[in-house]
Amino acid sequence: MYSFLNDYSEGAHPQVLEALVNTNMVQTVGYGEDEYCQKAKDVIKERIGNKNADVHFLVGGTQTNMLMISYALKHYQAVIACDEGHIHVHETGAVEGAGHKILVKPHVHGKVTCQMIEDICQHHTDEHMVQPRMVYISQTTELGTYYTRDELKALYEVTRKYHLYLFLDGARLGSALVLPDAPSLQEIAQNVDAFYIGGTKMGALFGEALVILHDDLKPQFRYHMKNKGAMLAKGRLLGIQFYELLKGNLYEEIGEYENRMAQAIREAFIKKGIPIYEPSSTNQIFVDLPQEAFERINKEFLVTPMGKIPGGQRIRIVTSWATSQDAVSALIQVIQEL
Amino acid sequence: MYSFLNDYSEGAHPQVLEALVNTNMVQTVGYGEDEYCQKAKDVIKERIGNKNADVHFLVGGTQTNMLMISYALKHYQAVIACDEGHIHVHETGAVEGAGHKILVKPHVHGKVTCQMIEDICQHHTDEHMVQPRMVYISQTTELGTYYTRDELKALYEVTRKYHLYLFLDGARLGSALVLPDAPSLQEIAQNVDAFYIGGTKMGALFGEALVILHDDLKPQFRYHMKNKGAMLAKGRLLGIQFYELLKGNLYEEIGEYENRMAQAIREAFIKKGIPIYEPSSTNQIFVDLPQEAFERINKEFLVTPMGKIPGGQRIRIVTSWATSQDAVSALIQVIQEL
Amino acid sequence: MYSFLNDYSEGAHPQVLEALVNTNMVQTVGYGEDEYCQKAKDVIKERIGNKNADVHFLVGGTQTNMLMISYALKHYQAVIACDEGHIHVHETGAVEGAGHKILVKPHVHGKVTCQMIEDICQHHTDEHMVQPRMVYISQTTELGTYYTRDELKALYEVTRKYHLYLFLDGARLGSALVLPDAPSLQEIAQNVDAFYIGGTKMGALFGEALVILHDDLKPQFRYHMKNKGAMLAKGRLLGIQFYELLKGNLYEEIGEYENRMAQAIREAFIKKGIPIYEPSSTNQIFVDLPQEAFERINKEFLVTPMGKIPGGQRIRIVTSWATSQDAVSALIQVIQEL
Amino acid sequence: MYSFLNDYSEGAHPQVLEALVNTNMVQTVGYGEDEYCQKAKDVIKERIGNKNADVHFLVGGTQTNMLMISYALKHYQAVIACDEGHIHVHETGAVEGAGHKILVKPHVHGKVTCQMIEDICQHHTDEHMVQPRMVYISQTTELGTYYTRDELKALYEVTRKYHLYLFLDGARLGSALVLPDAPSLQEIAQNVDAFYIGGTKMGALFGEALVILHDDLKPQFRYHMKNKGAMLAKGRLLGIQFYELLKGNLYEEIGEYENRMAQAIREAFIKKGIPIYEPSSTNQIFVDLPQEAFERINKEFLVTPMGKIPGGQRIRIVTSWATSQDAVSALIQVIQEL
Repeated sequence: MYSFLNDYSEGAHPQVLEALVNTNMVQTVGYGEDEYCQKAKDVIKERIGNKNADVHFLVGGTQTNMLMISYALKHYQAVIACDEGHIHVHETGAVEGAGHKILVKPHVHGKVTCQMIEDICQHHTDEHMVQPRMVYISQTTELGTYYTRDELKALYEVTRKYHLYLFLDGARLGSALVLPDAPSLQEIAQNVDAFYIGGTKMGALFGEALVILHDDLKPQFRYHMKNKGAMLAKGRLLGIQFYELLKGNLYEEIGEYENRMAQAIREAFIKKGIPIYEPSSTNQIFVDLPQEAFERINKEFLVTPMGKIPGGQRIRIVTSWATSQDAVSALIQVIQEL
Repeated sequence: MYSFLNDYSEGAHPQVLEALVNTNMVQTVGYGEDEYCQKAKDVIKERIGNKNADVHFLVGGTQTNMLMISYALKHYQAVIACDEGHIHVHETGAVEGAGHKILVKPHVHGKVTCQMIEDICQHHTDEHMVQPRMVYISQTTELGTYYTRDELKALYEVTRKYHLYLFLDGARLGSALVLPDAPSLQEIAQNVDAFYIGGTKMGALFGEALVILHDDLKPQFRYHMKNKGAMLAKGRLLGIQFYELLKGNLYEEIGEYENRMAQAIREAFIKKGIPIYEPSSTNQIFVDLPQEAFERINKEFLVTPMGKIPGGQRIRIVTSWATSQDAVSALIQVIQEL
Repeated sequence: MYSFLNDYSEGAHPQVLEALVNTNMVQTVGYGEDEYCQKAKDVIKERIGNKNADVHFLVGGTQTNMLMISYALKHYQAVIACDEGHIHVHETGAVEGAGHKILVKPHVHGKVTCQMIEDICQHHTDEHMVQPRMVYISQTTELGTYYTRDELKALYEVTRKYHLYLFLDGARLGSALVLPDAPSLQEIAQNVDAFYIGGTKMGALFGEALVILHDDLKPQFRYHMKNKGAMLAKGRLLGIQFYELLKGNLYEEIGEYENRMAQAIREAFIKKGIPIYEPSSTNQIFVDLPQEAFERINKEFLVTPMGKIPGGQRIRIVTSWATSQDAVSALIQVIQEL
Repeated sequence: MYSFLNDYSEGAHPQVLEALVNTNMVQTVGYGEDEYCQKAKDVIKERIGNKNADVHFLVGGTQTNMLMISYALKHYQAVIACDEGHIHVHETGAVEGAGHKILVKPHVHGKVTCQMIEDICQHHTDEHMVQPRMVYISQTTELGTYYTRDELKALYEVTRKYHLYLFLDGARLGSALVLPDAPSLQEIAQNVDAFYIGGTKMGALFGEALVILHDDLKPQFRYHMKNKGAMLAKGRLLGIQFYELLKGNLYEEIGEYENRMAQAIREAFIKKGIPIYEPSSTNQIFVDLPQEAFERINKEFLVTPMGKIPGGQRIRIVTSWATSQDAVSALIQVIQEL
């Protein structure tokens, strides 16, 4: 049965895999101090237009979030997120496990708003309460929505006002990068204090590229990585992959492809009059399906049930660089026949 | 200006202080292994009707909450509280600082309900989410309300169903103990896995008596205390105080007295038609005051502003063992003249 | 049986206790923001000759050590101590429990030396090792010895060289303060980054006064205290006690008295030809007793056995503000008759 | 310049890489719940002869050590290691960062001995000290030595006596597995409570297979992994690699090959009369080189300087699955000409 469960169901994009194969027997030093990592860092710094950024390669998203947040915060400080934030719901308490509270407010279309930040900061004013010190957002969000260029700028401004770091989780960044009103890599780098360029869900075998912009978040981050068991011995593997993804347009091509596949499916649902939950144009589709339709689709495709709705099921469909065009056509066919 | 700010504005109840003075030059061993601590433990075990309980004396409430919760939970486990829970709002992230998430739902009259627990447990079912493992409640609550005997039993039952520990923070326990439909010490001990008998706010100079009922929460708790910097060198000071508070009726007398003082004030407000927020019969009074009335009271008495309401202020007034009857009369006089 | 087990066997020095009794019914705000704490802070700042110091009052020594060290260090950083250091041996892993490694070298007369620091720093040079960031010493040491003025200055200099904080645990500070070649309060404040003035073992009921000199260690320390469960609700109790101890000469008088009592006992041993282990002139005496002598003393006095030696026992005898002159005389009598 | 710096200078053994390439486009579920992980677990359980073992795949060694130790210990408990232990020296305080003390004694040929364990356990007897709860050893050790079958059994016995878990770090396990007097996988599984089969240094791109034998260490370990950011999204990558390494003899062949390469080099040194430090027959060679010889070798080969010795340098040479026979011949040639 074909799986639309997520964007990490396969291995690596063939071009990334090929780069790993081609470099396999080259000897390098360990722990990310090799030339491949250097090249990947250089290309990232060039693309974001900031030579002073620090770039670190990590293995996974939860690890990256936990590391960046725990580096930035003292135990009496907190990170602000919305109630759908990945760190709040889907990371088994990794941030709290590292000793930091997450302050949440109900999301607005999957997003954190300036108002939430204002409210939380104005409420947390004495030393018997945690001190808000960072805002966590993700691009794209857990609901497949995204922050526009203007929304990101506004968030950045409000975080300046309250002396907060702004951290952007880019696990699915490629899907947003190719949208016209979403911030580019360069614009992101100008409007956050740290962010990561996701690899795991964007064509790499594994890996996330953490970009640190704010000088206070830079010193000795590698010690921190090692202390948390997050420094890969063969760091080269991450350098090789990110260089391959980012040296040309591969990263954006993947984003464009997965969005296009998703859009075709989305339109099929819309044509059928089936309501989309939190409409967007990224690679995640949330649909409120009547029970019968759900069962029909479920017979041939793996999709993620997100919870019951009156008379049916909300489901999630995810596309990726690996999504088969044939599978998409077949799914659309089924939708049309619902 | 007389302060109704809280129940820890003075030192110790004279009888407690006298016990400290009288024993001052007696030599004992340190760290709570002295005869005074033993006597205090014995009297507590007798009063709760459970000889197998473990009793530990700690210095403060946040410390006690953090210790008990961090002992009970792994870092991937969470404690359930309501959004007004002291651990969630007023402990500067102590529980998260120790590595544990707090899962919250909006309070119902300051309390956790069985339904909240059900909802949270049914939602947290996979290993990418924290695992609920404890429920935290306080008697009395942050809003001055309290759990009835039946409510506590119902909570205990639902925690059995979901394999959760039930932990009761008794910082102001004495105020509830003397209410007819609130659980007695013995009933509490039968319906929680751990709780503490508050001293700091109940007439002691300082100190809380943690009572552990569930066998799984007992082993090597003293090591845990020491590891967290929470084992008092002159542990005797805690034993002496709790023995004095609990050997006879002093603890209950304090509760009865502070409730009576609060009730007199409360009735004065009611007579005046001033609305009580979360009515109760414990030692905390929350009143929604018109601005003018607030300013009038504030001229002569220290009360805690809890936030603006339309046309005025919500305030908190707290009574204690030390509350002066004259001050109460004077305050009532002012209320009557509003 | 009279106890020479330690310097925290009784309650508080009568003068301290009296101050607590006299202020008992005064209303103050909580958490150390009252006038008594302010007065105590003022007197400390005056005595150390540094108006910019931050002073915080804490309840116990392990708590104070853990708080200061965990505030100063990131998890990839370590504190240097000698192998007899209290934090290394007698705090049940409190520093590691807070996430920080202790790097140790064998002590020299109970002390850390400049050479140890040099050796450790020169060995820890890459990011796969912890980074030394602080040196922990105690005045007096676990073996009753003390750092001279010159030794402290030398340590301070070497910590400057290696970008380390120097932290002095003064649990028994008073015993050293009155020795002519030991640093004064003012000299200590000029040659460390933080230290604490011990109360628990120096005549207070409980409490330690942490003095922070280095600006980087100051911001938001109170949040840190609260987060670790270390902010006393009735903070006034600490202010009242330290003001009493330090406003005049009481603290030094206690040190002088306990040293004098110890010296009398020490000299009795020396006259008898019984070897003193790590001779010093502070309030702890370590003696290598033949077995028979040990048993004789043990019949009438409680002393601490420190481990077997060939043909006998090493014991520790501790004097304090509360040590009875009669008991000292009786002990000397027994020694003379050995 | 050819590198003998370590055993993780290249990518993956070609057979392992091929397996990754061949499965690249197969869809699986994430987080290690796929069929490849299942197959790898099955083959491991079969080879260790224990169907009840739990197997988890992790990314790196420090991560695996930190996870297993922090799962097993409370913060007041400690792990015993020798002073050369990887967790003590080369993991940037990861174990302490997770909240646990390491108790060390000087190594004996790189190893922990029963006597060390006895000494530490007999010394740590009161609640003011950490409680020893685990012993950490590595096979092979940091000095290239290994535990024999009998040594491991003796350690296992002494850990039973003191209620300690025994944990074996097998980062370089393959090098020892093929030695006649070293314990087999099955014997290891019978004489430890947990161990890991190293992948990163044994031919995998990355990855370690943690095997948990003791039932108390099993429950909810996956939650713990996720909480520490250590659960790989594409867990399949680990399953595929370990299945390839362990389904036949590949793992042992790698061990045999790297040992053989090392032995050839070692013998060349011995023939030249150059002293071997801690002689062994595994893939690490420590040699005490006269300065001139060091410089000569260093001109053509990358080797690791381990510190100065009188008149020269101690160096480390490491071989691996990837070591070129030509490079070995060339190095031997240079040695012969010293």
